[in-house]
Amino acid sequence: MPRYRLTIEYDGTGLVGWQRQPNGLSVQEILETAFERFCGEPVTVWGSGRTDAGVHALAQVAHVDLPRAYPPETIRDAVNFHARPHAVVLLGAAEAAPDFDARRSARLRRYRYRILNRRPPPTLEAGRVWHVGTPLDVAAMHEAAQILVGRHDFTTFRDTLCQAKSPVKTLDRLDVSRRGEEVWIEAEARSFLHHQVRNMAGSLKFVGIHRWSAEDLRAALEARDRRRGGPTAPAEGLYLVEVVY
Amino acid sequence: MPRYRLTIEYDGTGLVGWQRQPNGLSVQEILETAFERFCGEPVTVWGSGRTDAGVHALAQVAHVDLPRAYPPETIRDAVNFHARPHAVVLLGAAEAAPDFDARRSARLRRYRYRILNRRPPPTLEAGRVWHVGTPLDVAAMHEAAQILVGRHDFTTFRDTLCQAKSPVKTLDRLDVSRRGEEVWIEAEARSFLHHQVRNMAGSLKFVGIHRWSAEDLRAALEARDRRRGGPTAPAEGLYLVEVVY
Repeated sequence: MPRYRLTIEYDGTGLVGWQRQPNGLSVQEILETAFERFCGEPVTVWGSGRTDAGVHALAQVAHVDLPRAYPPETIRDAVNFHARPHAVVLLGAAEAAPDFDARRSARLRRYRYRILNRRPPPTLEAGRVWHVGTPLDVAAMHEAAQILVGRHDFTTFRDTLCQAKSPVKTLDRLDVSRRGEEVWIEAEARSFLHHQVRNMAGSLKFVGIHRWSAEDLRAALEARDRRRGGPTAPAEGLYLVEVVY
Repeated sequence: MPRYRLTIEYDGTGLVGWQRQPNGLSVQEILETAFERFCGEPVTVWGSGRTDAGVHALAQVAHVDLPRAYPPETIRDAVNFHARPHAVVLLGAAEAAPDFDARRSARLRRYRYRILNRRPPPTLEAGRVWHVGTPLDVAAMHEAAQILVGRHDFTTFRDTLCQAKSPVKTLDRLDVSRRGEEVWIEAEARSFLHHQVRNMAGSLKFVGIHRWSAEDLRAALEARDRRRGGPTAPAEGLYLVEVVY
């Protein structure tokens, strides 16, 4: 059973997220159905991690064991053909070592959170950004974000349903920058807790509108209490950008 | 009747274009309905020019005469409120001189045509780009494009239904460049013929896949015959980017 590494782009709108679920269509189900049509037998596609309902990916990574070997371009084109009309595509497929595991081998995950920060609502970027009409103080957001970088107990920014064994994680990077009409929050870590990026984004918005000071953010982190955190930013602004191995 | 200049962004998907028509919803109708809800009486919104069905705008310009004066921010926010849930927004409104005419006063129009040039189909950019799976020779496209710059009879690139009095236009700029996975065609002129940018884009694609040489493009231009031109590129890749006064 040759193993392949897959790089996947998707529009999460209307999907229940990465993982197969009984209550709706997932990225995993779309890919597994396309693979089955291509290979003629069922396969399991193993992702680097779950993304929530509505979250997008520019380069999710997964691995799959196929019943026989194919040229990588054939896999990419055949799966993309069979995945239509869903907004899920393989950007690439590559032969992988038998011990390559998309989840366990990952060293770093990069997420981007996009805020459209202007008064008029989005048109062309609807469903792609979180619309915040109040001007954001990006310098204050970036400075406060540095409080969250490093090894911390992130209970304040963790969904109460999160199943991770420990709330302690190391956040390697959390940068806030303006990009034209948008504000981008870019986060890097080996792994994240459930809703962690969206919960950090919701709290950083509080800093950006001067509802919170940097010290309020620090107090929220140190409280280790989800009720002390800001709101969960909507899924539609979040992108899994890269998984590094 | 104070006159205002409007800057408008829209997602053209599903709309019949700028101009009000009996067969479907137009940008003009969405805006005029929103203005009427705001002002309490009917007004006409005059655009800088028509955009076709499905074409997008990053900054269309229009003028409107209102029954009384309002602060520009009030106009913007009220019209955006009443235009919901359509993907048409005022980016701004500004007081204008009584002789400002969005169409006649325009000195330059800028369009962008976006091609997604990669093998996998679009997901997040679906409806926003023309998908061309064959690698495009961008240098050859740009070089050939320069043949079209200047004052020419553009009959070859003009829709057979075009109502302009003359097919002679001056094209000031036609640049082709690669932007990551995309290829952008950027066109500037005082005015364009019907479908001119999309027809030029379809012909430049022929150059990009080496179906046509630069000399073939020149021969097509000089033939002054629409049947000698390339296909009309789809509306979904075209953006009205700017109107200069």
